[in-house]
Amino acid sequence: MNTSIIFNVLGGLLRFLGLVMVIPLLVAVYYSDPLLPFAAAVVITGSLGILLSRRYGAEGEWKIKEGFAIVAFGWLSVAIFGAIPYLFDGISPINAFFESMSGFTTTGATILQDIESHSKSILFWRSMTQWLGGMGIIMIFIAILPKLGVAGRQLFRAEAPGPTEDKLKPRIRGTARILWTVYVFISVIEVVLLKLAGMSLYDAVTHTFTTMSTGGFSPYGTGIAEFNSPLIEGIIVVFMFIAGANFALHYQVLYVDHNSFIKDNEFKFYTAIILIATTILTFSLWRDMGQSVETAFRYAIFQVLSIITTTGYASADFDIWSDSARIVLMALMFIGGCAGSTAGGVKVVRILLLLKYGRNVLFKSLHPKAIKPVKYNGKAVPESIMHSIVSFVVIYMMIFAISTGILALMGMDLISSITASIATLGNIGPGFNAVGPMANFDVVPDLGKLLLIANMWIGRLEVFTVIVMLTPEFWKR
Amino acid sequence: MNTSIIFNVLGGLLRFLGLVMVIPLLVAVYYSDPLLPFAAAVVITGSLGILLSRRYGAEGEWKIKEGFAIVAFGWLSVAIFGAIPYLFDGISPINAFFESMSGFTTTGATILQDIESHSKSILFWRSMTQWLGGMGIIMIFIAILPKLGVAGRQLFRAEAPGPTEDKLKPRIRGTARILWTVYVFISVIEVVLLKLAGMSLYDAVTHTFTTMSTGGFSPYGTGIAEFNSPLIEGIIVVFMFIAGANFALHYQVLYVDHNSFIKDNEFKFYTAIILIATTILTFSLWRDMGQSVETAFRYAIFQVLSIITTTGYASADFDIWSDSARIVLMALMFIGGCAGSTAGGVKVVRILLLLKYGRNVLFKSLHPKAIKPVKYNGKAVPESIMHSIVSFVVIYMMIFAISTGILALMGMDLISSITASIATLGNIGPGFNAVGPMANFDVVPDLGKLLLIANMWIGRLEVFTVIVMLTPEFWKR
Repeated sequence: MNTSIIFNVLGGLLRFLGLVMVIPLLVAVYYSDPLLPFAAAVVITGSLGILLSRRYGAEGEWKIKEGFAIVAFGWLSVAIFGAIPYLFDGISPINAFFESMSGFTTTGATILQDIESHSKSILFWRSMTQWLGGMGIIMIFIAILPKLGVAGRQLFRAEAPGPTEDKLKPRIRGTARILWTVYVFISVIEVVLLKLAGMSLYDAVTHTFTTMSTGGFSPYGTGIAEFNSPLIEGIIVVFMFIAGANFALHYQVLYVDHNSFIKDNEFKFYTAIILIATTILTFSLWRDMGQSVETAFRYAIFQVLSIITTTGYASADFDIWSDSARIVLMALMFIGGCAGSTAGGVKVVRILLLLKYGRNVLFKSLHPKAIKPVKYNGKAVPESIMHSIVSFVVIYMMIFAISTGILALMGMDLISSITASIATLGNIGPGFNAVGPMANFDVVPDLGKLLLIANMWIGRLEVFTVIVMLTPEFWKR
Repeated sequence: MNTSIIFNVLGGLLRFLGLVMVIPLLVAVYYSDPLLPFAAAVVITGSLGILLSRRYGAEGEWKIKEGFAIVAFGWLSVAIFGAIPYLFDGISPINAFFESMSGFTTTGATILQDIESHSKSILFWRSMTQWLGGMGIIMIFIAILPKLGVAGRQLFRAEAPGPTEDKLKPRIRGTARILWTVYVFISVIEVVLLKLAGMSLYDAVTHTFTTMSTGGFSPYGTGIAEFNSPLIEGIIVVFMFIAGANFALHYQVLYVDHNSFIKDNEFKFYTAIILIATTILTFSLWRDMGQSVETAFRYAIFQVLSIITTTGYASADFDIWSDSARIVLMALMFIGGCAGSTAGGVKVVRILLLLKYGRNVLFKSLHPKAIKPVKYNGKAVPESIMHSIVSFVVIYMMIFAISTGILALMGMDLISSITASIATLGNIGPGFNAVGPMANFDVVPDLGKLLLIANMWIGRLEVFTVIVMLTPEFWKR
């Protein structure tokens, strides 16, 4: 393995991280918060970054193994160094690491007991890590992972805009730049709308950070319930919906073909799931919780979007809802958003293709000689992609089961163990019971926190990227 | 579709059912119980059977569609007519149907509130339906379903003994006769051992019926806890273990090669899962429930075997165990026994092949050009079999999720909804909470009972057999 190039890229990443940490430093100056957390973070991260990229050259080329190592260790390093401000804020090392990993993986699970007791700049940084994480994900998903052939990503590579139309730009940079533009552009619109709806600029920016990245951190302990405004909830619903859809598709709609939404199988299925789940949840809240249809619908659509896009915001304490309502949310936790979005989870396209696959086999059991490939957006899906999707889901469910088992053995109750596992592996944020939306993950024992940190990291990097490094083949020669 | 042959076979089946119902009639005579329930059942079932097989000829041949229809409707008819004795015993129609379906599918979920209040002959019939169901399953799994190419059964067809060695016998009859001999032979041994261990002949026979079929009905409300005998539990553990393994493999071990056990991938994996789960469960009972290591091991190994083989016996009220213990059992509920056994569930071989498949894709992500098929018992597994396994699991999990959702909407709590669904779909029997081992399924609303009846039927027939009839293609021309 070419370790030199790995350290070189990690160095570049840390240099960039050190640089952007200047932003919360300025926020701290503005609010007269203590400056030490960010000053120290900028100096430590930046200087280590400079050291690494000077020491190690970028000679040679990336091969598959280097690609996996860079993605996995890159995310890990950023989470470690992004935790420095929390450390100086008096948070314990394991909790700081947890909060930072939860930020950069856009999970949104928190260990902070009394969120409002922390300074505005710390909470700003906390939201910003999610926005940076979201940016990184778009980069990784649409530009790097497809090159590594991870879990059916090849399918989406073909659809990523840019490179196919403009062969002059180096592939990764070009694609990434276009998608970041889309990401920043939509973010700015959300800030403006939230400001117009009555939020302060600080609230508008921090909530945009965590909506667009489907992260779900909020500077308030009660989350979006803090504002109790249907208008704000409505705006956030729309932007969660956008953030949970494929950014390459947004690009196409904006710049290529306005009808792309209607033609995309995944987008249509994503919308259908949301509509069905919202209907059932509205019914359930209306019947079991005695709410009016309007109120039930308001809470239902917000929470459906929040969970399926793996944002994890709460506009109400959904943990005290009836079991039929909670089960709708639990089912959504296993789906997740669209591929190429900032959302986590298994992803709608994988679920859709698995269902089509099952339907196909059913058809073939009646017509054994029929040849009928699974189709996606009008094209036949290659067998190799179906393989990687299947093994993705198998490994995903195995990690989920093992994690649930370990948490239960540590003494957590069944529902908390199940939902803490899926909420971190799917990068959602809160679960039910002990880790519900109005509770926090500090109740988990330290070893359990490490497990959940690993879940967030593994889930965010589409499982394979991390798991492949556990195979002996990876370390051979 | 050749409907004549379908009715002809159904007629034959009902004639056979009417005939075997003479056995509980004799039991009723012996115990001076009311004779009407069985006399009526024999007359109604037998005469309808004779009528059908006289009216409809057996001309023409079975094709795929006829095969599916015979298997699915055959099971359904037997469950309906097998409910007649319960009706005459004063049980409501829906409950009688539930209990009968639970019997013939070897599920073991019960709606009886006070089991001991029913006559000995009724409880004998209840246990006997499971033994008959187990016989039917072996027939269907090893002789019929492989012909229909259901969900990877082709893999096991190659291994079924008999036909390949003796081409003279008609295939299905020959295979079935050999396996029934094994089934009856092992059953007789169990009766003898249970009798020697101190059970009455009645108890020994009824418990053998429900061990060998992995059914789990017991004439006692407290199940195996009634006897409180480590020896009896030990004997049942051994026979549950045998009943949960492949009967074709038992035949090979008995008559062909005594070392077949060691060579069989599925059997080894089945044993490994049992050992690991027993260890974890023993630890958990010892630590959380303050039991001695010996007692913990005694309850652990019994319950692990009871759940993984989908028998569903209880030697203790496992629903009041700690959450870490319950989660081990819940994980086992999703596995089930070996293919070609009387057990239900997803089956060990499918889980094993999915894991191997995942491992393979992981390997390929590092070596994209490597060719490395999934191997099972030393042979490469054809792609078409992997396909059917994958879609089996997808459809299975979907039915599980939908069933859980519907039960929760009917007002059942989360854990009860989840475990009632998997316990019926996997043909296990009891779940947790409202449907725990010392409770019963009568708390489920009537519509929910119908859903669970469908689950048992669908799960027992390996999903496809029933689901395929829901596709429009099935009914075309």
